[in-house]
Amino acid sequence: MSEHSGTRPFGIETVIETTRASLPGYTGVVPLHTPDYSANPAAWSYVKQCIDTGWVSSAGAFVDRFEQMLAEYTGSPHAVAVVNGTAALHVALELAGVRDGDEVLMPALTFVATANAARYCRAIPHFVDIDERTLGVDAERLGDYLKQIAEQSGDGPVNRQTGRRLAALVPMHTFGQPCDMEALAVVCERFRLTMVEDAAESLGTFYKKQHTGTFGKLGILSFNGNKTITCGGGGAILTADPDLAQTAKHVTTTAKCGKAAWEYYHDVTAYNHRLPNLNAALGCAEMERLDQVIQAKRAIAERYIQAFADIEGVTIYREQPFARSNYWLNILMLDPEHAGRRDDLINAMNEAKLLVRPVWNPMHTLPMHADCPRMELPITESLAQRIINLPSSPHLL
Amino acid sequence: MSEHSGTRPFGIETVIETTRASLPGYTGVVPLHTPDYSANPAAWSYVKQCIDTGWVSSAGAFVDRFEQMLAEYTGSPHAVAVVNGTAALHVALELAGVRDGDEVLMPALTFVATANAARYCRAIPHFVDIDERTLGVDAERLGDYLKQIAEQSGDGPVNRQTGRRLAALVPMHTFGQPCDMEALAVVCERFRLTMVEDAAESLGTFYKKQHTGTFGKLGILSFNGNKTITCGGGGAILTADPDLAQTAKHVTTTAKCGKAAWEYYHDVTAYNHRLPNLNAALGCAEMERLDQVIQAKRAIAERYIQAFADIEGVTIYREQPFARSNYWLNILMLDPEHAGRRDDLINAMNEAKLLVRPVWNPMHTLPMHADCPRMELPITESLAQRIINLPSSPHLL
Repeated sequence: MSEHSGTRPFGIETVIETTRASLPGYTGVVPLHTPDYSANPAAWSYVKQCIDTGWVSSAGAFVDRFEQMLAEYTGSPHAVAVVNGTAALHVALELAGVRDGDEVLMPALTFVATANAARYCRAIPHFVDIDERTLGVDAERLGDYLKQIAEQSGDGPVNRQTGRRLAALVPMHTFGQPCDMEALAVVCERFRLTMVEDAAESLGTFYKKQHTGTFGKLGILSFNGNKTITCGGGGAILTADPDLAQTAKHVTTTAKCGKAAWEYYHDVTAYNHRLPNLNAALGCAEMERLDQVIQAKRAIAERYIQAFADIEGVTIYREQPFARSNYWLNILMLDPEHAGRRDDLINAMNEAKLLVRPVWNPMHTLPMHADCPRMELPITESLAQRIINLPSSPHLL
Repeated sequence: MSEHSGTRPFGIETVIETTRASLPGYTGVVPLHTPDYSANPAAWSYVKQCIDTGWVSSAGAFVDRFEQMLAEYTGSPHAVAVVNGTAALHVALELAGVRDGDEVLMPALTFVATANAARYCRAIPHFVDIDERTLGVDAERLGDYLKQIAEQSGDGPVNRQTGRRLAALVPMHTFGQPCDMEALAVVCERFRLTMVEDAAESLGTFYKKQHTGTFGKLGILSFNGNKTITCGGGGAILTADPDLAQTAKHVTTTAKCGKAAWEYYHDVTAYNHRLPNLNAALGCAEMERLDQVIQAKRAIAERYIQAFADIEGVTIYREQPFARSNYWLNILMLDPEHAGRRDDLINAMNEAKLLVRPVWNPMHTLPMHADCPRMELPITESLAQRIINLPSSPHLL
């Protein structure tokens, strides 16, 4: 390696050194993404308020406040807080009309909750490929695919190969990077597909100034412990439709609706997906500093982008021109010729106390979803071998 | 009313005065059951520890510790903490083998989650009557009923009227009062019924020195905000079977099982029912003072029993000889001739800031469960009109 060459060759040690150099001051274990409340005194103050007053459970002012803050930040007219992102997605799919034996189109490259949520509705995941530029559903290839397999019925689009209704498309914003939403909206419009957005990873991510999760009929957010902000657990359902919002609240809170407040009457089979006030309190505190968090995360991304710029054979993913990303988890992408080194690299980095991880095993490679319908998935299969997530906690700045 | 009569006639004002007299020192609003951490500094300390360290989410030492404390207290070899009691019951039924189109026997007088959990498994609730002495499933009448409707198949008992498998019996310990477990065990044995115990309300309740929730193949607990102890939300699955315990943990934590810790591989369609560490911390603090809590609740029950002893037409429920009850919610039972006054009494008590409530509307009276099979339910129908729960928070002592 010459200091004059302008480039450095790919190598495990080089990647480790460059990652470390991007995170000055962190000599020990660097987790992938963890909460840190040391800069946020409101976290303890709000949580303490819950304990002091005894309002820790499923009713309480922080739940309402958290919903208001989410609605305001995302620009979604309504936000319904629930116990986690998986529960949010399950209910959103149900409210979008997903039923037994339907198919739900979704990227093959996603966290397993996306596919599981369809299964909870007794629907069948139908996997589509992603675009290497966005890491999300490839609108153009989806359109071509639907031209082949979809036909319209009185009940919406149907997969003519299986005879099953195509009940929804669930775009997922991978590691916080937004899909090309305008292009996907065109496809949904053209094929009369209902869109439900899995924005579990993209709180703080905008597509052309519109927040992710607000393009579909419904969208969902997650506040799991590894996310941009966390309530411990936590999730939310977003929708512009007041009736859907009301139903979402109703069916996630056991559908209790007696004439008197004290009456235990329930009118539909519903869920106990309530977010405890204790967790909502933490969410409120986190929302107050979300702008700072996103700023820090974007700065870390920029550091990685700069630091890795001269290493051959790897790229740090950079947001698309239409995107303002939260850079939830930074993405180190290996060129195809280095794909075979991925696991060695991950192991070496973990041994070097950089707790990196690969992207998920694609859904069609998991035993319970292996028989699901799918289009050709060349980009998914290629990227699944080549993505490593780098430590991205905002406090690493 | 004569002071020499030894009895006082039934009257709304008398009930209100007697309730107030049982709770000296509480002049304002008296909620039904609320947490109060003022006597439990560990609540603040453990929760603060989560926030200080950032360990608020689905991994963390308090989750393990909470599970250990629950196992130790209940005598259950295994306890798996989950996000709430409803989630626990859903998974327990699945693990007990409840499948599409099965029937699940359960009391008609229960909180709606019992019936909903069967529905999540696509099974059909089948309602049975309760015993006025225990407020739980009447073992003798259940036995007689099963003699009529059940026949044995290679796949277990079948309802010969519907042809559906009778997959489980779910006894529920109403307001913390235990069912007659030995009698129910005999019925289950005789008819080869699997028992899954809904002990959502009965942490701290023992039947002949054995903790409720430990008699069935699986049992569940709830730590919702209104319960004897709370984590904000929270629930647990109890079982003596190590394989079931391992599966319960696996399927409530997304079934993640890659070869390396960093691998995102999952082997079955599973759930995200993880209890956040933040909530488990509160649970640990509450478990430490559970003995005191139960003592206080039993003392409050004794006060009500004494105070109402001389009022005609009402009874405070007292535990059965085989029981050591947590007296989760105290029960004021109106004699049948006063049933028509129940709602007036509840309204008047709520206006007098005593936030009492009636028992649940029985499951067969709710629209979504109205068509379910059921036996004759005379006791359920009678008691549903006559039960009022009195304020029972331990800090009312």
